Amino acid sequence: MSKFWSPAIRSLVPYTPGEQPKVLNLVKLNTNENPYPPAPGVTEALHAFPTERLRLYPDPDAGKLKNVLARHHNLNAEEVFLGNGSDEVLALAFMAFFRHDKPLLMPETTYSFYEVYCDLLNIDARRIPLDAEFRINLDDYQQDNGGIIFANPNAPTGIALPLARIEQLLQQNPETVVLVDEAYVDFGAESVIPLIKRYPNLLVTHTFSKARSLAGMRIGAAYGHPDLIDGLQRVKNSFNSYPLDMLAIEAATASMQDDAYFRETCKRIMDTREHTTAALTGKGFKVLPSAANFIFVTHPERDARELMQQLRNENILVRHFTRPGIDQFLRITIGTDAEMAQLIEKL
Amino acid sequence: MSKFWSPAIRSLVPYTPGEQPKVLNLVKLNTNENPYPPAPGVTEALHAFPTERLRLYPDPDAGKLKNVLARHHNLNAEEVFLGNGSDEVLALAFMAFFRHDKPLLMPETTYSFYEVYCDLLNIDARRIPLDAEFRINLDDYQQDNGGIIFANPNAPTGIALPLARIEQLLQQNPETVVLVDEAYVDFGAESVIPLIKRYPNLLVTHTFSKARSLAGMRIGAAYGHPDLIDGLQRVKNSFNSYPLDMLAIEAATASMQDDAYFRETCKRIMDTREHTTAALTGKGFKVLPSAANFIFVTHPERDARELMQQLRNENILVRHFTRPGIDQFLRITIGTDAEMAQLIEKL
Repeated sequence: MSKFWSPAIRSLVPYTPGEQPKVLNLVKLNTNENPYPPAPGVTEALHAFPTERLRLYPDPDAGKLKNVLARHHNLNAEEVFLGNGSDEVLALAFMAFFRHDKPLLMPETTYSFYEVYCDLLNIDARRIPLDAEFRINLDDYQQDNGGIIFANPNAPTGIALPLARIEQLLQQNPETVVLVDEAYVDFGAESVIPLIKRYPNLLVTHTFSKARSLAGMRIGAAYGHPDLIDGLQRVKNSFNSYPLDMLAIEAATASMQDDAYFRETCKRIMDTREHTTAALTGKGFKVLPSAANFIFVTHPERDARELMQQLRNENILVRHFTRPGIDQFLRITIGTDAEMAQLIEKL
Repeated sequence: MSKFWSPAIRSLVPYTPGEQPKVLNLVKLNTNENPYPPAPGVTEALHAFPTERLRLYPDPDAGKLKNVLARHHNLNAEEVFLGNGSDEVLALAFMAFFRHDKPLLMPETTYSFYEVYCDLLNIDARRIPLDAEFRINLDDYQQDNGGIIFANPNAPTGIALPLARIEQLLQQNPETVVLVDEAYVDFGAESVIPLIKRYPNLLVTHTFSKARSLAGMRIGAAYGHPDLIDGLQRVKNSFNSYPLDMLAIEAATASMQDDAYFRETCKRIMDTREHTTAALTGKGFKVLPSAANFIFVTHPERDARELMQQLRNENILVRHFTRPGIDQFLRITIGTDAEMAQLIEKL
């Protein structure tokens, strides 16, 4: 605390990212990173890049990458927004669309950064409990609001909603922005991007940190009606004109150009997830049905926090959240088959 | 305009960066980029980086780079903050320190992003005119305030204040944060970083985009008392946990390790600036005394806007600002000797 701080920041409770240990040889299943490297074309693109060009500013709109993403998703470039990781894209979206008098609706259990943005931006949030099976029940979101946000699949549960149910919500809620955070969509859920042309209030965010194996490069995107993208651009250009560096643009573009590799690595992770789920279920764990690159597990007789500590002593990192209601669960990232075999053995 | 936008963003006037043309073979003297490539070690570091590591998140604190910068400036790592370009660092600093009831003091003519941040964050700014010679007069800043910001050297004038005069201001103004934006300090001005240990309200921002030739990589820093850095960290971690990607950290670290190259290229730019200033003065231009990598020039008989257009027709880009009081000036980035010879010939 310092007298120099703006009053608004004195009470902030910042987001706590999962630990990035400096120790090597850990089995790191705590931050939902991809166990496979980025597409081979990424290395080629980075090595081919003429370093002398770094003296120049990047294209503030990263037009090259926008065009590639627009083509991939059957959108126009005017329906694409880019930022320094999907966390930044989300922060800008909260600024652009959720600072209204009415409360923002979000699941009580979801990506914990959402409530941090609300705190930072003085947004009133109404946090809606999950149902008894830890699912988002969109019937509960039919109430007066200044916006709606949820992750699909949700985090840290991994459970996905069907596209048809989200479309129903969009029909019922045409007056405020519905933001669907699809950070984990590529591991088995349905993307709502095809609905963008029909619902001008739908904003969808993606990241290159999970299925694209580029967490180290910080690239996020949003897709929506040009008016929403324009709103995001206005906030971005009032905050930081050039969020994506030249190498991030190159890496992301190269990644998008190798769809076979992308599909293959996503499939491998989904296969590993199903084996792991079966093995842990066999050991008495309850595993929520995941459409993400992680599983959310609990055991009727073992304390989650202790389990996390014991795994840590065996050099295996998993994530434990202390929030009431989910404090007996562990979130375990899907690694390689070999890593998951180690985990299963230790458990 | 869209009904979905938060009311606060409807009236935003975003920052307009200098044009990044897609045409090649232009003499680009409009965005204060360095004409020389980054240090040779940057290329080596980028090529040596194992791309497979990009699947992991970067160190959220970029500790490796913080340590190198702390050592370079005789500070501790707790006195260093890093962000995605100094624009982001400035935006976070405005959030952290300038949202008070009293107005923020800034020069009327300075980096135009400052007033955009005020607009975005609803900060009341008092803009103080330069003197008749286009200099900042710090006597005018002795008034009740919620913070003070100026660039040293100032932009777009290029004129620097002496360290002793800034120290005097710090003595007179101990209760609010004084932010000195030193984006251009390496081209001949004195850095106030040595004052940090004595003035807990002094915050200094730097960029890797100018003297370090890394505009394409988006790296900025702030230096100050640990309480100020802690305030910045809190806001950063409530906005975007990982602003610097792995390759930006590598590139910046490698750049810091080649001080001889850095000094040599800065010196070349300063030499070119002095030749250019002499040549333009000889042609009847008035050139403000610059300690930056650009000059701010006016001609008693030629309209600045027309001149900018004529140069553009000759494939030479320079920057013209329409703000009253400086609308008869052009801001010209110092390029190579050959580029400046072309400019002088066309003028």
